[in-house]
Amino acid sequence: MNILIIGGGGVVGQKLARALVARGQLRGKEISAITLADVVDPAPITAPFPVHTVACNIADPASVASVLSAEVDVIYLLAAIVSAHAEEDFDAGWSINMMGTLNVLERARALQTKPVVVFTSSIAVYGGEVPDPIVDHSFLNPQTSYGAQKAVGELLLNDYSRKGFVDGRGFRLPTISVRPGKPNRAASSFMSSILREPLNGAEAICPVDDDFPHYYLSPRKCVENLIKGAEIAEADLGQNRCMMMPGRMWTIRQMIDAMTAVAGPAPANLIRWESQPDIQRIVKGWRFDLRPEKSLALGLTADDSFEDNIRYYLEDDKPSA
Amino acid sequence: MNILIIGGGGVVGQKLARALVARGQLRGKEISAITLADVVDPAPITAPFPVHTVACNIADPASVASVLSAEVDVIYLLAAIVSAHAEEDFDAGWSINMMGTLNVLERARALQTKPVVVFTSSIAVYGGEVPDPIVDHSFLNPQTSYGAQKAVGELLLNDYSRKGFVDGRGFRLPTISVRPGKPNRAASSFMSSILREPLNGAEAICPVDDDFPHYYLSPRKCVENLIKGAEIAEADLGQNRCMMMPGRMWTIRQMIDAMTAVAGPAPANLIRWESQPDIQRIVKGWRFDLRPEKSLALGLTADDSFEDNIRYYLEDDKPSA
Repeated sequence: MNILIIGGGGVVGQKLARALVARGQLRGKEISAITLADVVDPAPITAPFPVHTVACNIADPASVASVLSAEVDVIYLLAAIVSAHAEEDFDAGWSINMMGTLNVLERARALQTKPVVVFTSSIAVYGGEVPDPIVDHSFLNPQTSYGAQKAVGELLLNDYSRKGFVDGRGFRLPTISVRPGKPNRAASSFMSSILREPLNGAEAICPVDDDFPHYYLSPRKCVENLIKGAEIAEADLGQNRCMMMPGRMWTIRQMIDAMTAVAGPAPANLIRWESQPDIQRIVKGWRFDLRPEKSLALGLTADDSFEDNIRYYLEDDKPSA
Repeated sequence: MNILIIGGGGVVGQKLARALVARGQLRGKEISAITLADVVDPAPITAPFPVHTVACNIADPASVASVLSAEVDVIYLLAAIVSAHAEEDFDAGWSINMMGTLNVLERARALQTKPVVVFTSSIAVYGGEVPDPIVDHSFLNPQTSYGAQKAVGELLLNDYSRKGFVDGRGFRLPTISVRPGKPNRAASSFMSSILREPLNGAEAICPVDDDFPHYYLSPRKCVENLIKGAEIAEADLGQNRCMMMPGRMWTIRQMIDAMTAVAGPAPANLIRWESQPDIQRIVKGWRFDLRPEKSLALGLTADDSFEDNIRYYLEDDKPSA
């Protein structure tokens, strides 16, 4: 079992790689090698088998060909230009998120090895004129370039799979919280930083009101679901290989209360409330009443409580003092 | 008012050009020029203003740039590799239907003139795991490459419009019947030929049973709707600029009975019934219970009866003996 993680330098990619190393096998076969590819050379991972790290620009077909060989059995395609960045830089978003996905699929097709491709889409594909709740057969009406690019990626993945070029499966990730590391250019960045920074003893800005509802999943559950997602039998995927990944709807207030329940009252006092219309304009178009029936039926799961999300951060990610 | 029709050599493109010439104006402005672009130089049209005909390969950005100038106010983007052709030739389908659409939008963006773009999508975007009836917020789950390419085109058109680069509006065309001319490589080709050939005194093959239901529109109504489509106020398009074009559901039996009602019993005897599994595999994935509420509310219309479809063919298209 040879695994390529494109976006292997990112938070989810690194956690996924470590979880795969701990597990030792995927799809019933012992893992023999993992390659972590990202726009800059990813951090190495210790494992009892070779873990290669390599720089790759998925917008460049030759660069994709250099990392994707016929030996690869499973490709995790996690790399993306995130939402606010894609909104600012129209060309970079379409080039990486659409053409990059196409380049990976085209390379896989040329190899004629039908690798499994696990693609991370996003709940940013939802928006616009679609009634709540969002169900498996709700229209994708993205109101951001990022969402549009992910929706195109889903169509590509489905058609390349229908033709038998790849065995694709796509998962619309909820917003990951508590995401470790630094703030990034995703419009959703604050949805982790208002918890992460205070839990680390630092201030954070909340740009929306505390009744803002959104749909979340912890990094730990996300990685579990990505592993399960690679293992779903192809026949069970049906006529649409892309589906919501389960999450849970929480308001900012519920998330902060969960933080207080787990870590005491001090962190919440480090949150500064500062309305940011640019961020609000993006995130208020996102949908939060999601019913991921298909992925739940296929065995994927959400967090049991937001207290769990807080605990997972403290256990897995909080920097030691 | 300067109009560019890409796909101007096709049946709909030619009829649209003639209807625009007869009308003399579009969006409240007198038409000053029409350019008909197609993969081979389109047939010329007589008009009281210049009608240019030009060969253009939309898969080639330079070729698109040569036909799309800053003078163009309205672009009709009708050109496409049709369904069975796109299913056979995977590369040609994605190259023309997706990259061609992207090339037109990119050229329009570079011009910074925000032209109106009327894009013809198709009801082939529907399929798969989506319950009937198909409504405006039903998921697009195409089960052909052609359908997937049109669905991608819609996402591109919406995002380029949301960004203000173009004023796009897309219409998912029902199957056009009775389409004049020769059979083509669309899987739906028989849905016209079983009427057209007998009305012309020739034999035709029907590859499906007579209870096969599908969703149709006459060329005359299609052209009317494309003109109305260009004239919808941008503000009325809402958060999704792509919608079904109204049509009506008919079975093969109803269509043949309508032909008999209008033209007598002789034509129906020229139909040979011959089951064709390849064609059936494609067309049976298509959806027919469609509810085009949005476009009806915006003033687009369907045919009143299939007898009308037959009459329009006899009036507009039947070759003189």
